[in-house]
Amino acid sequence: MKMLEEMITSKGQVYPGNILKVDGFLNHQVDVELVDKMAEEFYGHFKDSGITKVLTIEASGIAIGYAVAKLFKVPLIFAKKSKSLNLGDDVYVSRVSSFTRGEDYDVTVSRKYLDNTDKVLLIDDFIAIGNAMKGLVEICDQARACIAGIGVGIEKGFQPGGEDLRMMGFEVLSLAIIDSMSEDGTITFRKIED
Amino acid sequence: MKMLEEMITSKGQVYPGNILKVDGFLNHQVDVELVDKMAEEFYGHFKDSGITKVLTIEASGIAIGYAVAKLFKVPLIFAKKSKSLNLGDDVYVSRVSSFTRGEDYDVTVSRKYLDNTDKVLLIDDFIAIGNAMKGLVEICDQARACIAGIGVGIEKGFQPGGEDLRMMGFEVLSLAIIDSMSEDGTITFRKIED
Repeated sequence: MKMLEEMITSKGQVYPGNILKVDGFLNHQVDVELVDKMAEEFYGHFKDSGITKVLTIEASGIAIGYAVAKLFKVPLIFAKKSKSLNLGDDVYVSRVSSFTRGEDYDVTVSRKYLDNTDKVLLIDDFIAIGNAMKGLVEICDQARACIAGIGVGIEKGFQPGGEDLRMMGFEVLSLAIIDSMSEDGTITFRKIED
Repeated sequence: MKMLEEMITSKGQVYPGNILKVDGFLNHQVDVELVDKMAEEFYGHFKDSGITKVLTIEASGIAIGYAVAKLFKVPLIFAKKSKSLNLGDDVYVSRVSSFTRGEDYDVTVSRKYLDNTDKVLLIDDFIAIGNAMKGLVEICDQARACIAGIGVGIEKGFQPGGEDLRMMGFEVLSLAIIDSMSEDGTITFRKIED
């Protein structure tokens, strides 16, 4: 997606350790116009898939997840990280190792909101190693919900998350795939056929 | 707001310790149509205030914050809880005590995204004791940003947060104010003049 790639090039910041900061437009300050356009891409791609729920993970997936759910006219569910005192015990749980945080946490979704009648579109802003997304997959498996597809804003193509999920048989639409990046700010995108 | 009050009455759940769970439509599963209508209320009320940024706090404020920012055509900023390894040191920080979590955490906003030229609308899904919202106020003060108003989905009127903020001189619009609730499910709303 050209608009997203241009935003990454102009406003993204590369830090040591292959860290790409996009907090100027995606996951701290949110450019609503951009995120709406990203949502339209996901909607266009998955609109005939019979989606009943959009599932994302707090916190940075919520804005894009909301914009997508609005187009599909279905509820958004955001999985919680760490166990909230208010969530109750009746939850699906998956344990996730975080590359960014350097710690493990539980991802939970209440059993009330996901079951075997659902066709789910998984959405997140970012995928690198893919552990958070695999946690969402595990939660859908626990619910016996059908995963209709996976939509990702930015994929780090030099890390295995996106490819792992494709190898697992999922249709993964990433709007920008980064093949390489360096600390001088050079970012190379993969050509995406669509 | 009648639609929100009806949703609270029909789908909210009251638990011991004055806990109201609204995770079926507001802060775990999100009813997009409802949240869009809530955003329209905030927009209608504050549309002539010259808002340049909407500021909320992760995670449950993001959906409603996004919907509001979209109507104002301004960026959404969501303040982060606890210090992310990726955020950098150049942040405004406020220490918040959480009633729900039973622990303290830091709320941070990058200095890059908020300054003394901003007129900010603060948005959150819920206010009870109000510590999270007061943290956002403190962050705006650090940035010397002007707070144009505060929009809250559900206010627990029997806890001091909303009133504290009004006493501090802020215009607080709460879409539903709960005066009392009991474990048999009875919820009494305050009549809101508008």
